Amino acid sequence: MTAARLASLASQLPALRLLTDPSDLEHYGRDWTRRWTPAPLAIALPASVEEAQAVVRWAYENDVALVPSGGRTGLSGGAVAAHGELVLSLERMNKVLAFDAVDRTLTVQAGMTLQAVHDAAGQHGLIYPVDFAARGSCAIGGNIATNAGGIRVIRYGNTREWIAGLTVINGKGELLHLNRGLIKNSSGYDLRHLIIGSEGTLGVVVEATLKLTDPPAPSQVMLLALPDMTALMHVFALFRARLSLQAFEFFTDVALRHVLAHGAQRAIDGDHPYYVVTEFDADEEAALAVFEQGMEQGWIHDGVMAQSDAQAAALWRLREGITESLASHKPYKNDISLRISALPGFLAEIQALLGEEYPNMDVVWFGHIGDGNLHINVLKPATLSDADFIAQCDVVTKHLAQTLQQHGGSISAEHGIGLVKKPYLESTRTAEEIALMRGVKQVFDPKGLLNPGKVF
Amino acid sequence: MTAARLASLASQLPALRLLTDPSDLEHYGRDWTRRWTPAPLAIALPASVEEAQAVVRWAYENDVALVPSGGRTGLSGGAVAAHGELVLSLERMNKVLAFDAVDRTLTVQAGMTLQAVHDAAGQHGLIYPVDFAARGSCAIGGNIATNAGGIRVIRYGNTREWIAGLTVINGKGELLHLNRGLIKNSSGYDLRHLIIGSEGTLGVVVEATLKLTDPPAPSQVMLLALPDMTALMHVFALFRARLSLQAFEFFTDVALRHVLAHGAQRAIDGDHPYYVVTEFDADEEAALAVFEQGMEQGWIHDGVMAQSDAQAAALWRLREGITESLASHKPYKNDISLRISALPGFLAEIQALLGEEYPNMDVVWFGHIGDGNLHINVLKPATLSDADFIAQCDVVTKHLAQTLQQHGGSISAEHGIGLVKKPYLESTRTAEEIALMRGVKQVFDPKGLLNPGKVF
Ligand SMILES: Cc1cc2nc3c(=O)[nH]c(=O)nc-3n(C[C@H](O)[C@H](O)[C@H](O)COP(=O)(O)OP(=O)(O)OC[C@H]3O[C@@H](n4cnc5c(N)ncnc54)[C@H](O)[C@@H]3O)c2cc1C
Ligand SMILES: Cc1cc2nc3c(=O)[nH]c(=O)nc-3n(C[C@H](O)[C@H](O)[C@H](O)COP(=O)(O)OP(=O)(O)OC[C@H]3O[C@@H](n4cnc5c(N)ncnc54)[C@H](O)[C@@H]3O)c2cc1C
Repeated sequence: MTAARLASLASQLPALRLLTDPSDLEHYGRDWTRRWTPAPLAIALPASVEEAQAVVRWAYENDVALVPSGGRTGLSGGAVAAHGELVLSLERMNKVLAFDAVDRTLTVQAGMTLQAVHDAAGQHGLIYPVDFAARGSCAIGGNIATNAGGIRVIRYGNTREWIAGLTVINGKGELLHLNRGLIKNSSGYDLRHLIIGSEGTLGVVVEATLKLTDPPAPSQVMLLALPDMTALMHVFALFRARLSLQAFEFFTDVALRHVLAHGAQRAIDGDHPYYVVTEFDADEEAALAVFEQGMEQGWIHDGVMAQSDAQAAALWRLREGITESLASHKPYKNDISLRISALPGFLAEIQALLGEEYPNMDVVWFGHIGDGNLHINVLKPATLSDADFIAQCDVVTKHLAQTLQQHGGSISAEHGIGLVKKPYLESTRTAEEIALMRGVKQVFDPKGLLNPGKVF
Repeated sequence: MTAARLASLASQLPALRLLTDPSDLEHYGRDWTRRWTPAPLAIALPASVEEAQAVVRWAYENDVALVPSGGRTGLSGGAVAAHGELVLSLERMNKVLAFDAVDRTLTVQAGMTLQAVHDAAGQHGLIYPVDFAARGSCAIGGNIATNAGGIRVIRYGNTREWIAGLTVINGKGELLHLNRGLIKNSSGYDLRHLIIGSEGTLGVVVEATLKLTDPPAPSQVMLLALPDMTALMHVFALFRARLSLQAFEFFTDVALRHVLAHGAQRAIDGDHPYYVVTEFDADEEAALAVFEQGMEQGWIHDGVMAQSDAQAAALWRLREGITESLASHKPYKNDISLRISALPGFLAEIQALLGEEYPNMDVVWFGHIGDGNLHINVLKPATLSDADFIAQCDVVTKHLAQTLQQHGGSISAEHGIGLVKKPYLESTRTAEEIALMRGVKQVFDPKGLLNPGKVF
């Protein structure tokens, strides 16, 4: 069966690069989660839109499931191929296609890394402002498919805000040019926004026209040490009101311990429960004034302001190094969001719950408080098997999802549903919404071959 | 039949306000276009979400077509009821439901006018930045249904950017709470963005959570007189690069003539082919420097900078009064968009075409050049019958649509497709896209009762 399928593909597309080595199947069959055993049919690496479209058409004619694949830095299992799917990797489609100075847009192939997009924008004195620690490996197509957020959302919004046009292949192999770079377009439904965040279940993104913008004003980076969550909320409100924020990221002492153990450099002495890395348009006087106000109120216990680019980078590393520093502990990740106003009530409830349910586990909190987005990472104790650990975490996630639902939150802020959050989708979306989503899926992918089993 | 239907509705919903007077049928059955003869079944004016939902459910059970209706300032015939539809007017649902200072959101009923939304935001020291001349009559639900643009898009984007949550009733009468005010939410397809711009064909918007923002820095308003379109493109590039623009709107001498005849005050002497009203963050020195540079280059022939709020308002009236000043001339309106970079090539072609095809008609150009959005209004000569005039214009619009297609533009930038642009949808969207749109429509509105015959 497998052999026959591959023979069919190879004969129909003799020039297509196709990988079937066990090491390749493993490499391309999993994402950052590493929870599922990779078992793809093969890896197809098209070099052009036409070739990608031919692969999807072949899959459609032969009823073969496809997994669209970017940099596989995804944290929800969205790019996992564990059931004989053909992985459609955009890796070789990694070129800039066009830059337009008047429109201030960059048109790229979907396999370009986020870092390469940043570099290309920089060459024209502009920025593509979506940014986060996986920038060197994640692909712009994956960012679009997950509507990636990151550390500058408070200023610039999510990936969705920066997509002026998308070229997409739907489940029938039809090529769609959605919105074509227009700023204004009220000519029928905006299918572009359906594709953004659809995790490869509605279409394969092959090209994208990205909006660029001017670089921000020179900025300053500050690290703050805080006594508790209430103080954190106060400091956020204070800083947002008085400074022009570019980023406002928090993490806990437990997170700090891990990132220091992983080679980052301590910047504030003593033990403090919470830390914030914040970046804002440089206005030293205003910054010192709000800092002092925070100190006087008892909300801030200590702080440093970076005096050089190197020090700014070192402060940022304390926040950006967290995900990597936890990887060896096989963390169980939650990526939740609430309205900012709902955070305090939710946190009071959930911290009690986690304290009861995970008394012996390291729970690492960090995230984008200014977007209402919290990452809760539970670390696997060495004594527990992977399966037992995940089973325990799944129980707690059920409670978490219920509490979130009561507070109007979402089970995935920016990582997507994929496989990891699929059992909890009902806590964020109603039965009617899920039925509509399935209906939409049926329209774009009538045979259900694009990333089957993901999201729902 | 009509009587039986109305009796059924009245008996099922005895408290519902229902209008059937001929004058009401006429008033609520048409929009700003006035091209179709209103002939609705009746006008339903629910006072609550529950009542609106009950109306949709009744319509679903009884196969009655519905036309969702806001302020009926629409310019595409989207809110026209000419075939015995029940008009579902949101007019009575016009209250603020909640303001949240932490989230900086305003939750409103869909029937609130845009002006009332502005006022409510202002009471909290914040702004809802979408703005245009119909603000006093158009409703926020209609703005959402058309993804309204307006005069501040260059700084703030379209309505789409400002919608944090939507409460919507789909064609089956199901109530959906989409995105619920979250900043980040990657939990399945973002159906909110499907509803935005769907012109009442996928669901009835009953409530919306709007994002608010800080008022802009104090600004300055300038009127410029320019010799030609090429100069206009240069001046736009110059101003955008050097000033922090809030608005950059252009119009022609013909537009000026009409708005002056309608009571606006002349601000620059002499005849000039093109004018620009621009508003930017106040920096008088920079403004004068770029103005002088534009004069030296020969791109700007004259200009005034407002010296008071009253003068600023008078300059703005020259641009904002245009649509009203043309109304009595029954203008045939085109509302097109292109990438800004595609404008010069398109304009060269289209001005030749219009000169040939409309040699005897007044053609009024104005619009939002910084968004690639042009309004082309052809005025009806008094000697021509309405029907002949529209027939002539339709012929030219076919050419226009073809030229647009070649230059990658869109047949509707911000007014929507409705009835007016329906014959030209294929110039902007491919057959595959239209088929997908129909599929999506079928999912949200299986009986096809929401605004039938609009868009496609
Ligand atoms: C250290 C680290 C830090 C991170 N920080 C953040 C953060 O701050 N914010 C954030 O949002 N995420 C973060 N992530 C998660 C991850 O990087 C993002 O989800 C990223 O957008 C995934 O991109 P990718 O190319 O790796 O996608 P993949 O993992 O390859 O795929 C993700 C999903 O998108 C689909 N997909 C991929 N390419 C395409 C395509 N071309 N067309 C259609 N579907 C496609 C896949 O099928 C899958 O469902 C982080 C990850 C790591 C490891
Ligand atoms: C003087 C003037 C200036 C204008 N300037 C601009 C401009 O600069 N930019 C711009 O974008 N537009 C402009 N317009 C057009 C118009 O004002 C906008 O399209 C506006 O958004 C329409 O709002 P409305 O409430 O009047 O909608 P309506 O005309 O009542 O309806 C418009 C469409 O939305 C649907 N709809 C209405 N309410 C709902 C609801 N609650 N749920 C679902 N569907 C609904 C209708 O069925 C219809 O298809 C202008 C119009 C005038 C008269």
